[in-house]
Amino acid sequence: MKKVYFCQWCGSATKQDIPDGDDKSRAICTSCGKVTYQNPKMVTGCLVEHDDKVLLCKRKIPPSYGLWTLPAGYMEMGESAVEGATRETWEEAGAEVEVMSPFAQLDIPLIGQTYIIFRARLKTPQFSPGPESIECRLFALDEIPFDSLAFSSMLVTLNLYIEDLKAGKLSFHYGTINKRPGTGPSDIHSYTLDDHLRC
Amino acid sequence: MKKVYFCQWCGSATKQDIPDGDDKSRAICTSCGKVTYQNPKMVTGCLVEHDDKVLLCKRKIPPSYGLWTLPAGYMEMGESAVEGATRETWEEAGAEVEVMSPFAQLDIPLIGQTYIIFRARLKTPQFSPGPESIECRLFALDEIPFDSLAFSSMLVTLNLYIEDLKAGKLSFHYGTINKRPGTGPSDIHSYTLDDHLRC
Repeated sequence: MKKVYFCQWCGSATKQDIPDGDDKSRAICTSCGKVTYQNPKMVTGCLVEHDDKVLLCKRKIPPSYGLWTLPAGYMEMGESAVEGATRETWEEAGAEVEVMSPFAQLDIPLIGQTYIIFRARLKTPQFSPGPESIECRLFALDEIPFDSLAFSSMLVTLNLYIEDLKAGKLSFHYGTINKRPGTGPSDIHSYTLDDHLRC
Repeated sequence: MKKVYFCQWCGSATKQDIPDGDDKSRAICTSCGKVTYQNPKMVTGCLVEHDDKVLLCKRKIPPSYGLWTLPAGYMEMGESAVEGATRETWEEAGAEVEVMSPFAQLDIPLIGQTYIIFRARLKTPQFSPGPESIECRLFALDEIPFDSLAFSSMLVTLNLYIEDLKAGKLSFHYGTINKRPGTGPSDIHSYTLDDHLRC
């Protein structure tokens, strides 16, 4: 969490203290008294299905340049998660999709992110890489580049999806991704999936 | 969305402009160049079931002082949604719960909030109002105070729950709550539930 030193609204210095009626230390403005709250952010994206394949994008931007991901990005103010997932899929993969069902919520407390992933289908079979993607491609499930994925969240999502298909029943999954201590952000295979709940 | 005027990290004035490689206007620092991103926040809570009843809290704080809600609150940095929902239920209702399954994600784009609601059960049958609650009570489903609920999100959650129980199948629900134009925040019945998806 990037530490806050100044008030966004009046520009004065903040101090770390526990506001009245709270029990957590926050950045409080020493001049106007306003509190800056920092909270986890949502990343919303699509698991796009087409002809028993899934759509992945090869990243043209850091982090994880050159590695594969589902189209996804930060949810913006004024939009819903479905709108954000649809927008990101258009921006990163040039694909027009219809969201079909919620598939997973994966929290990553260490980095203050929650991934919200929807199953979606292509409205038309066209797609092409947007400015943040080197390449977009449909992968059969036994061809997914598991050694070249960008993020743990995508590894978990794709594993759960393949497990569900093998079991013959697609569920909604909730889970927490906890990185194993001492592993770096690029080691996407060193995690535990905790509190895994299905519905 | 509260407008940002100063940089949180260096205290200099910000200007509204579109950062390189972006397509949305953000607050950019005129001195250090850092961008302040504002994103929707998650509110996480529990639908606590006990003896065919659900646990509601009467609010002792604004907004919606004196009205009934499920125990819920902002998800904090460093915790998962399940941890946050469990914590809020302890803080607001003095109840120790075990989360059983995800029940709903409800986005409210107008106010930049996403509600994440889990079904939970009491570990022990004790509960008592915390500092933010006047009273906590178990309500049978035909006794829920629908005219005295605090938020649209709780109205939608409880309606979906009752519908699911009548249908004999509990689902996970995704939906977007859009307030009807011209209605105030206290008019919790003037909304449409859009993009409603079940899993």
